[in-house]
Formats: sequence, structure tokens, C-alpha cells
Amino acid sequence: MNMDIQQYMHTLGRQARAASRLTAAASTHAKNTALLAMAAEIRQRRAALLAANATDVDTARAAGLEPALLDRLSLTEKGIDAMATGLEQIAALPDPVGEITDVRRRPSGIQVGKMRVPLGVIGIIYEARPNVTADAAALCLKSGNAAILRGGSEAINSNRAIAACILAGLEQAGLPVHAIQVVDTTDRAAVGELITLPEFVDIIVPRGGKGLIERIAREARVPVIKHLDGNCHVYIDDDADPAKIVPIVENAKTQRYSPCNTTESLLVARAVAARHLPLVGAMLAAKGVEMRADPEALAILQQAKLPAARLVPAREEDWREEYLAPIISIKIVASLDEAIAHINTYGSAHTDAIITENYTRAMRFLREVDSSSVMVNASTRFADGFEYGLGAEIGISTNKIHARGPVGLEGLTSQKWVVFGNGEVRN
Amino acid sequence: MNMDIQQYMHTLGRQARAASRLTAAASTHAKNTALLAMAAEIRQRRAALLAANATDVDTARAAGLEPALLDRLSLTEKGIDAMATGLEQIAALPDPVGEITDVRRRPSGIQVGKMRVPLGVIGIIYEARPNVTADAAALCLKSGNAAILRGGSEAINSNRAIAACILAGLEQAGLPVHAIQVVDTTDRAAVGELITLPEFVDIIVPRGGKGLIERIAREARVPVIKHLDGNCHVYIDDDADPAKIVPIVENAKTQRYSPCNTTESLLVARAVAARHLPLVGAMLAAKGVEMRADPEALAILQQAKLPAARLVPAREEDWREEYLAPIISIKIVASLDEAIAHINTYGSAHTDAIITENYTRAMRFLREVDSSSVMVNASTRFADGFEYGLGAEIGISTNKIHARGPVGLEGLTSQKWVVFGNGEVRN
Repeated sequence: MNMDIQQYMHTLGRQARAASRLTAAASTHAKNTALLAMAAEIRQRRAALLAANATDVDTARAAGLEPALLDRLSLTEKGIDAMATGLEQIAALPDPVGEITDVRRRPSGIQVGKMRVPLGVIGIIYEARPNVTADAAALCLKSGNAAILRGGSEAINSNRAIAACILAGLEQAGLPVHAIQVVDTTDRAAVGELITLPEFVDIIVPRGGKGLIERIAREARVPVIKHLDGNCHVYIDDDADPAKIVPIVENAKTQRYSPCNTTESLLVARAVAARHLPLVGAMLAAKGVEMRADPEALAILQQAKLPAARLVPAREEDWREEYLAPIISIKIVASLDEAIAHINTYGSAHTDAIITENYTRAMRFLREVDSSSVMVNASTRFADGFEYGLGAEIGISTNKIHARGPVGLEGLTSQKWVVFGNGEVRN
Repeated sequence: MNMDIQQYMHTLGRQARAASRLTAAASTHAKNTALLAMAAEIRQRRAALLAANATDVDTARAAGLEPALLDRLSLTEKGIDAMATGLEQIAALPDPVGEITDVRRRPSGIQVGKMRVPLGVIGIIYEARPNVTADAAALCLKSGNAAILRGGSEAINSNRAIAACILAGLEQAGLPVHAIQVVDTTDRAAVGELITLPEFVDIIVPRGGKGLIERIAREARVPVIKHLDGNCHVYIDDDADPAKIVPIVENAKTQRYSPCNTTESLLVARAVAARHLPLVGAMLAAKGVEMRADPEALAILQQAKLPAARLVPAREEDWREEYLAPIISIKIVASLDEAIAHINTYGSAHTDAIITENYTRAMRFLREVDSSSVMVNASTRFADGFEYGLGAEIGISTNKIHARGPVGLEGLTSQKWVVFGNGEVRN
């Protein structure tokens, strides 16, 4: 069986590599034609998609899949429209491929610049969320790449139905049918193969829980765009504008609890803690957020007569925790230096914000906090491809190399050097 | 013993990580002061450096090291001056750290941009070339990184002497003494440790032979800026300007045989092969270059009455070979399509050039050849950090992600997102 899977994945890899030569050279028009045709197919095959998805949902429910996962697996009429609209939006984005920038003439006479080009073949590994199939396919194709998509096995029928729409779109545009391949097996060995084929796969993008991503990062023989924890911080500086504090913390922590850019930890400068923390605490308590506070912060919050049930002493492990829940850790720090050191020690290098009116401390925070997004006077919730203007997002990278932070089409490309000569030779 | 090495490398790693926080925040002035002080120390300690190097060379000669390697190991008066001058040149380069670009205002009111920041800790693994110690140290420091340098064991005394100059320079500039650490052991286990410390090391740059780099790429648990083969091509297109052909091929192949950007394979469009190949062949024969040609090219070269000793039938493996010697493979191709397919199949994605006056084929070659440098009407020998205007080069990357092609200071940095807000929250 595993030999079969190995052979199957090698075949997909070889086909993807061959297709990637053609997608790299494909015109913007052909790629957009394919994306719009896929969207049309998805709308037309609505009934078939819903039926395939119902099969998956029934099987998963019978197998006892938990409600949150069932919810992600389920396709609704609205979800199908959103999938098609997503494809149309990606068609409308500018094509990054072929853009030549930074051309300069050198003393030798040559002109040197950079050209943006696809990475080649992208492997996407994700959980049982059928909408990711369409979304990832579109981002990979628009950026001139071939893709191999491996979704969660619970969604296999939904993914097959979506794959049929993708295939129809590719064919209508005259693009290679292997440009986007959906792995058509639920055998888990397929993932192990996909991440160890450097000759066929240029980069792996895992989308899913931390466990999945850690495993892939550990075992991959191919570069991985990793997104691990989002342990994001807001630091209330000595010179924070009181009018900005509660709105930012409220939005950063309570707008939604599950996204990775939600704030999990609040740092407060000692000199202003007694002044600001009671107001912040009252807002959090009113929203039902549990506060895990260090002794100093706890004392201030207790004096402010906040409901005792919401106040818990913080333990060391709280500083590292990504709660994804109505819980926040709170710590008093002596200074900006301590805040930066704390974030760089306990944070996850995702997104961190300072609230301050002080120019020098704002600039130091931006420079010295070693995270993929650093912010002044804004909610950490803004760390997002759409909010940053990328138009779309394949994920948020906590890698330092290649793509960092929200990854859009550019993150699925690289730049090569181009030299325009006129017969020059080197001295 | 290995426990000791493990502990030792962990200590270096921890120290480097701590120092990297300070080098990241260091001013351009402090970094340049350190680099100029290192250069001055190297000049002042000339006698000590020569003595330490003599010890290494004597030991290596007694151990039977081959002449080419002995030559690389040896430091001369001139080599010491070049090392110091190199440091001064890197001090004179613009500081990439902290540069903010691409700032745009978003509909939400936030302004989003990118800030260039150091990678953190860079591990450099190289062979017994003492000058690399100074050069790599300078590039890492200028780009705001901490570095752990592991040179070939034959150069241990030379490297210790250079490390003393580096340390003195760091101290004079008030920079952390652990910003640049030279691994002070000849135990090979040190390399294995260095490449498996993701918590302390952000990226590995191996400089050396293919065997070293392959091993490191295989075993590393840290991203590697790889440079494998340079199997570079020149393609003579149907519309090649005859006046450009011989000068470019001569320079690309024969200027120097050992660099990675030297051309190893010549492709010639069938329609013009009989016209151009005899002249190219005569030049190559005159330079003593052996031609390994496919049957068609061989027939043309034989008809041209070139010395039979220089003409050899090519075998399949010749298309993949990086000769690093006065040997070139020659193949006739039907068209640009075949040339591109050949290069993408057999090349090493390093540097490839087309000679043509045809605009459309030139642009297709640039776009479709999947190499780190692609050129029109210029010698492949230009693929070099200095020739491209990077000012310095830590290596040439054949990776597709992160740094591609010649890697200068920018390749040792990444970009993070910076958000300038005014109290905005997300809707």
C-alpha cells in the first residue's frame, strides 16, 4: 500500500513539475480566464457540491467529529457563493509574475534588475475545510505556480467535487490539467511523501493546527512556510494616550477570540499601571475575560473591585500561552526595555503593539521587537493580508526567511536576477 | 567528548542569541567603528597573523594537504591587506537595517510598510580559508546579525588570531563580545550541533565544496542558504549577433575555469550552428578547451578541421557536469523551446545566458529559464555580488526562497511589517 502511495505521490509531483513550466509562462489572461471559469463551474455545480459535502458531513458526524470541526467542514449555499467570489477576487488582483524592478546600469555596461517569478510547485496541506481547496488553488495559479493540494480526509468528497470545477476551469483556459492537483486518497502516508519530494515540490504551506505544522516542519525536506502560535502582546507605555487604550485592548482581545492575531498578553508600564489598568480590567471583566495577572497587576485589579472570579494569579507558563479564548495574561513591566525583552522571550514573533505618544519609544519598539508585525497605536487584529492590502492571504508566516507575516501572492513568488547586456564581457 | 561539544555549542548559541538583540539595535556608527577597528587590528597584528598562519600551513603540509588547499590556507602580506581593506569596504556600504519602505495608507486609517531587520544569528560553515573569517564576520555584523563562524580545522590558529582582532574591534566599539564568535575547536561534531540549533541559529550559510553543502542541507534543522553546482549555459540563438558570440563565449568559458559562474555548456540553434560553431570551436581549441559535443555539433567541428584531440563525443552525463576545468559540452538544439527545456532539465538553476538580437526570444528566455540569474548578450561571469552592485557577497544562492543568486547584506536581513496607527481598531 505504501509503495502505491509513494508511486502515486511521485506521479503527482512529476506532473506538477511539468505543469509548472507552463503555468510560469502562462499569460495573465489565461490564468484569469481559468479562475473565472472555475468560479462559474462552482456556481453551476452548486447542487453537486452540496451533495458531496453532505456525504462528508454525515460520515464525519457518525464518526463523532466535534461540532467546531463539523462546522468548518460544512458547505452552505452562502459558503459556495463565497468560494466563487473568492476566485473572482483573486482573478481581479494584479499579476505579480514577470514584474521587473530595481534595474540599474553598472559600470561594466550591463543593466541588472530583478524579475518576479513563480516558486514552481507548491504543496498545500490543510484540514477538513473545503473552501481552502478553491482558495489555495486560485492563489497558487494566479502566482504562476502549480499546486498539489492535500486536504483533510473528512472532506474527500467535497474536495473531489471542487477539484472537478478546478479541472474544468483549467481546461477552458487551455492551461495544463496538472497545474492544480487534489490528492485523491485519504491515506495519511501521502503527507509524508509530499513533504519529502524536493525534486518536485519547492515549498510546503501547511494550514491548520500547531500539531500539524510542527510535525510537518520537523519532517519536511522542503522549505515550509510555517505559522505556529500567535501569542500577541499589547504594551501600554508610560505615555499611552488614555483615549486609545481601552478601544485598542478591547478590539485586540475581544473582537474575536480564535484568530492568531488576537492579543493574548497585556504589558503595562509600572508608572501608569494604577491609572490605566482598572479601566482596562473593567472592560475585560464586562466582556467576560479572565485575567491572569502577576502579583502587582493582580493587586491593582483587586483594589479596583473587579469580580474576583475573573482574576487569577498568573503562572510562568501563562506568558507563553496562546489561549484562543476569553483569557488574557497581564504583567507590569518597569520600562520599554523590559517590555521588549519580555515579548522577545515569551512571544511567538507574530504581532505585537505598543500604545504610546512617545516618538522615540514607538520607533524603538518597531525596530527592536522581533516579530513579523509590529504596530504603534493600532489593534493587533490588523495583522491580516486583506487589512494590509495584499488582496488575499495564503497564511501568516512566523518564519524569518522568505515570507514573513501575512503571505499573499508575492509570498508565493521569488525574484531572479535579470541582466540586459549588449555584448559585455567581464574584466 | 560529544557532550562537551554539545554544551559548548549551546553556550555559543545562547550567547549569540543574546548578543543578536544588541547588534540588531546597534547604530550604524557603532557597527562601522567596530569594522574599522578590526581592520586596524588586523594591520597592526600582521606579524602575529602570519606566524599563526605559518603554524597552520606547516601542520597542513606535513599532513599532506594538497597544493590547491594549501594555497587557500596561506595568508600573505597582500592577503592580510586585502582582508583589512575588505572590512573597510564593508564599513563604507550603506546600512540596510531599519530601512522602511512601501508605506501605504489603508482604508482603515492605518499606514502599513515594511522594515528591513537582521535575521538574528547566522552560522557560517566554511573550509580552511582564513580570509573568510574576517569577511563573513563583517557582513554579518554590518547587517545587524550575530554570527557563529566555523572554519576548517586546518586554519584553527589563523582563525584564532583573526578572532582576536574581531574581538578587539567589537570591544572598541562597545558592541557585545559575543556578536561574532569563532568556534574554537577542531572537533567535527561542532558542525552537526551548529546546524541543529533552531532556537539559537536563524540561518546557516555553508561556503565550500558541494559535498559539504549537500551534507549540511540534508542534516540541518535550520534554513540553509545553499549554493550547489554552477552548471551555467550560453545559448546561441538563431538571431545571435555574430560580433557578440565569440567574445561572450570566450569570456564565459575561459576567463577563469574554477568559478561557479563559468559556463560549462554551450547550446547552439540548429539553423546557425554551421555558421557560428566553427569560429567558437577554433577559439576554444586555441585556448586548450576540450569540447564534448553531441553528434551534430561534433560533425560540424570535425568538418572545421579542429584538432581531433580537443573533440570528444558527449555522453548523457556531460549535460549535468560542472567541469570547473577547460572542458565544455556542446549541443545543437532545434529552437528556443528546446534550449529552455534543456537548461531547466540539466542546468543547476545558477546562471544562463542567451545571445540574440530577437526581442521576443530574449524576453522569453529571461522569463522561462528557471535560474537565479538570466542574461541577454552578456557573459555568465557577471553573476557576482560586486558586478551586480551589492558591494559584497556572502555567497551565491541556488535556493529559490529567501535569497536567490548573489547574496549581499540584504540577503542577511528580512523584512517585517510595521503599522503606524492612530488608535485604529478593526471592524
